[in-house]
Amino acid sequence: MSATPVESDRGGETVDAFHRGDFRVVQPARGHRSGMDAMMLAAAVPGSFAGRLADLGAGAGAAGLAVASRCPRAHVVLVENEPEMAAYARKSIALPQNARLRGRAEVVEADVTLTGKARAAAGLADDAFDFAIMNPPFNAGHDRPTPDALKRRAHVMEAGTLEAWVRTAAAIVKPRGGFAAIVRPVSLPVLLDALAGRFGEARIVPMHPRAAEAAIRVIVRATRGSRKALSLEPPLVLHEAIGHGHAARADAVCNGRASLFGD
Amino acid sequence: MSATPVESDRGGETVDAFHRGDFRVVQPARGHRSGMDAMMLAAAVPGSFAGRLADLGAGAGAAGLAVASRCPRAHVVLVENEPEMAAYARKSIALPQNARLRGRAEVVEADVTLTGKARAAAGLADDAFDFAIMNPPFNAGHDRPTPDALKRRAHVMEAGTLEAWVRTAAAIVKPRGGFAAIVRPVSLPVLLDALAGRFGEARIVPMHPRAAEAAIRVIVRATRGSRKALSLEPPLVLHEAIGHGHAARADAVCNGRASLFGD
Repeated sequence: MSATPVESDRGGETVDAFHRGDFRVVQPARGHRSGMDAMMLAAAVPGSFAGRLADLGAGAGAAGLAVASRCPRAHVVLVENEPEMAAYARKSIALPQNARLRGRAEVVEADVTLTGKARAAAGLADDAFDFAIMNPPFNAGHDRPTPDALKRRAHVMEAGTLEAWVRTAAAIVKPRGGFAAIVRPVSLPVLLDALAGRFGEARIVPMHPRAAEAAIRVIVRATRGSRKALSLEPPLVLHEAIGHGHAARADAVCNGRASLFGD
Repeated sequence: MSATPVESDRGGETVDAFHRGDFRVVQPARGHRSGMDAMMLAAAVPGSFAGRLADLGAGAGAAGLAVASRCPRAHVVLVENEPEMAAYARKSIALPQNARLRGRAEVVEADVTLTGKARAAAGLADDAFDFAIMNPPFNAGHDRPTPDALKRRAHVMEAGTLEAWVRTAAAIVKPRGGFAAIVRPVSLPVLLDALAGRFGEARIVPMHPRAAEAAIRVIVRATRGSRKALSLEPPLVLHEAIGHGHAARADAVCNGRASLFGD
């Protein structure tokens, strides 16, 4: 299952085909590149979704454009604070191969951690969205052996960021609107704490590389203002011995052929 | 997979064989009866475990005795506050068929929510154990449709109980000692909050009735004083189409033939 076949390399940037060529994303050849995580996050949105969706920290736009591609009644707002990445997101939307998404995708340059009037002034007004998705940044070095103190500091910083991002999502999403995030398992407690009192009915899907290995990511979908209990859904298994059907499901989900929750 | 074949019914109480007859438990015929949850909890303890283990809220002793039966170097203390259930636990230990466990199992009548000197005086001294396991009580009515306010109150009460139980576990277990609990998925956020700063390296195993259904229980094992990150382990699937091997693993784990974490 390859989420990011590079279609062309234009010197410093690449054009990558997703969803078996349904849409494309322009990305820097080096640095943070979107791939499977973005596709799995986008798959958490129901195929029947209609309305405005914010992709918080959109990068070059892979997750938001995947929603726009699979959900024909979705209008996606790619929220990105880095001018360089926001420029890639605009280039992605402008690609001739993405013509059918144009008019349903736009870029807003804004810091997701803004609050109050500054947030609204940046284009993120209260109750302005029907859904928010996020693949929040994390320190990739965190999983590698580093001094404990450094590791803890990085983790505390990440916890604060995640809380601020969920706070923004809760502000901009209407009551009964949707939320989805993809995080590392280590961030699950912080994410659940951040959701508490804001989003309920959380549905948690662990993503395992193989059936016998620990999860590497967790995808969570929740509903604004719901008081319903969380649930732990069947896991998504990426690779597997032939014949079990798990990997086929993961492939369909990753390629826009099925939603993560079957809706 | 039947965890509790009733071996005999002696008027108001039953003698149930667990682990394919390796040991037996005397239980009331009505009211709270132990079964699969207790066996899955016990399976979280490594087979190589040696030392003193506290089964907090032991009831008739099923989980603690399952540890004693599978781990020949374990000494288990069945902690139970209800005199009637503590009496069943004593009867369980005294069964002639459990002779090989005698000398390695005892009952302590104590309220798990006690603190400080009162807790120590009741037989639960600080750092006195190498492992604590718990299957904390929950209001079975909570999953059924009840008025929201009632439901919330029950849940808040349960959250307080769980926090108090984990606090006791953290007090009585030595540094680097073990902890395991089985809870409903709805209680996972409260459990993770209670573990924070006390037990680390949490390993979470969701238990699903079938591969395509949401989890009904979550088993968590953790280490006292560890700062390592949590992990989401492959799920335990109880029933399944023939040939996938999941149910065979669950059967072995439930019957004391394998530990939950393969150790």
